[in-house]
Amino acid sequence: MAIPPASKLPGEFDLIARYFAPLSAGMPGALGLQDDACTYALPLGEELVLTVDALVAGIHFLADDPADLVARKLLRVNLSDLAAKGARPVGYLMTTAFTAETDEAWVAAFAKGLAADQAEFGVGLLGGDTVATPGPLSLTLTAIGTVPMGCALRRNGAKAGDAVLVSGTIGDGALGLKVLRHEFLELPSHERKFLADRYHLPQPRVALGQALMASGLVHAMMDVSDGLVGDLAHIAEASGLGATLRAAEVPLSSAAAEILAEATDLLPLILTGGDDYELLLTAAPNDVPALLGLAAEIGTPLSVIGEITSGAGVHVVDRDGGDMAMVTGGYRHF
Amino acid sequence: MAIPPASKLPGEFDLIARYFAPLSAGMPGALGLQDDACTYALPLGEELVLTVDALVAGIHFLADDPADLVARKLLRVNLSDLAAKGARPVGYLMTTAFTAETDEAWVAAFAKGLAADQAEFGVGLLGGDTVATPGPLSLTLTAIGTVPMGCALRRNGAKAGDAVLVSGTIGDGALGLKVLRHEFLELPSHERKFLADRYHLPQPRVALGQALMASGLVHAMMDVSDGLVGDLAHIAEASGLGATLRAAEVPLSSAAAEILAEATDLLPLILTGGDDYELLLTAAPNDVPALLGLAAEIGTPLSVIGEITSGAGVHVVDRDGGDMAMVTGGYRHF
Repeated sequence: MAIPPASKLPGEFDLIARYFAPLSAGMPGALGLQDDACTYALPLGEELVLTVDALVAGIHFLADDPADLVARKLLRVNLSDLAAKGARPVGYLMTTAFTAETDEAWVAAFAKGLAADQAEFGVGLLGGDTVATPGPLSLTLTAIGTVPMGCALRRNGAKAGDAVLVSGTIGDGALGLKVLRHEFLELPSHERKFLADRYHLPQPRVALGQALMASGLVHAMMDVSDGLVGDLAHIAEASGLGATLRAAEVPLSSAAAEILAEATDLLPLILTGGDDYELLLTAAPNDVPALLGLAAEIGTPLSVIGEITSGAGVHVVDRDGGDMAMVTGGYRHF
Repeated sequence: MAIPPASKLPGEFDLIARYFAPLSAGMPGALGLQDDACTYALPLGEELVLTVDALVAGIHFLADDPADLVARKLLRVNLSDLAAKGARPVGYLMTTAFTAETDEAWVAAFAKGLAADQAEFGVGLLGGDTVATPGPLSLTLTAIGTVPMGCALRRNGAKAGDAVLVSGTIGDGALGLKVLRHEFLELPSHERKFLADRYHLPQPRVALGQALMASGLVHAMMDVSDGLVGDLAHIAEASGLGATLRAAEVPLSSAAAEILAEATDLLPLILTGGDDYELLLTAAPNDVPALLGLAAEIGTPLSVIGEITSGAGVHVVDRDGGDMAMVTGGYRHF
């Protein structure tokens, strides 16, 4: 333990009592965040689903992003991973590494963002750790969910001939980041706001994920976080197969469609950019109508965008079936 | 997502495949670290115990500490929290934030340290996230254990008149850090090494913690990580009581006793320094012989060091019962 940096914050115990303990109110096993560890009793017949994601200021979010949106994104990227397994989210543990520049107003707004999303998604804070860092503000969240024993969906179950489906719209997150960097200034302001919101505030498809799991019709599923083409390649590779992606059938928001109409060279960004947080899945073609109906009931659109093929790799094809060269592999973190 | 810093490391997927996936070999629910999330089925009649701790280079460990020891300390501080609940450790999720300076040899040594401790403590890697940071190397580990339903020990169960007991020896971690900073040069080299090892490599009392839980005799328990006096104050406060700590009965290693004989002004550091990772517990005086016998069977010493009292606060007394002024509150992280 070295001397921690100077800080604008109250002490660790005060900070926890003031901002984080209230977030654990609905979780009796959190013990008010006043113990070494928390407990959680799993419902009978269910198994745990666990995932962890870290966000670093300047890498995964912009240093001047509003604190409440950073908090909600931190929680939502993890909920999206749970959704991809078909899990019901339960709670989370969180580590916050604050800097000498972090002030109490930031922490208060951060906690407020978490409280809003806890209410929206029915989760609570189970435990955490609060440390100081001389580096950028860094956040780690471990999310916990449950799924009926043996029913968690995986990436590796795709079968040759399966239809490939995706929820929502693709590319908004990558375009939203460009909006935040002052591109697309000619776009109407409501569309600029829509795209920026999609970057800041992903919509984890928690209800759809559970319904898809419960249908028993889905062969493979994951969430699209590293880019559609790269993530479809993950499903194909894990399943020992290939895939065809029909670019013209990839669902776009009206803002993304408008941008693409003006700048067709942005299609690769839309198809390979990250931060979509939609569900990507495969199922037998015969089961597609049932899945589309189920998605319509929940109110989240689902679109067929390609097929699983024998062979290997993802082939992106244009409207006429012609091959489109595409750099795959998703976002490289190093 | 911004441009990540230049790096000496292979890509994220290669790094995971080469160094982290092998650590998940014993955990079928980890899915080879190739999925969005992992699964874990809890044994019937057990509940989960979860804890998370973060270590930041320059704050919680020294930047030039050997990578394998950093890895083992990261795991062990979390296992110590599980031990304090009486839990059996099962597995862990981990986030690593590497810098532009982190090279592959560091990651290889780090993974080797984890492998050694996985074998020693019977745990496996369940999942994780690997990111880049422009700040100091930062590590977060969420540990998972199980305990019979309703049996997790807590801090708040102490009763007036309880004996206060502690495992192992106290103060070695704080003195070990001074050794690493080139103090106590007059001490024999084997004692310098002993103290440095105690700082680098805590011994989480996992077997003792489970045995103490199973005995049904322990009223309150926690691990000593923020300093003995401050942590006893946590038990007293959570239980709505006070405590007396008899300084002369606090168990010391021969190295610590030798240092204290020469420099009596170091007693406060020994009693309030952090990084002990011993178990601190309370039980009825009548049950103390049974607990000491149980600890002897396991091979970890247990010592009676004080009593729980009505009133509030921790009173540290010397050999003659005189009050010793002591700054309590443990380590302040900001």
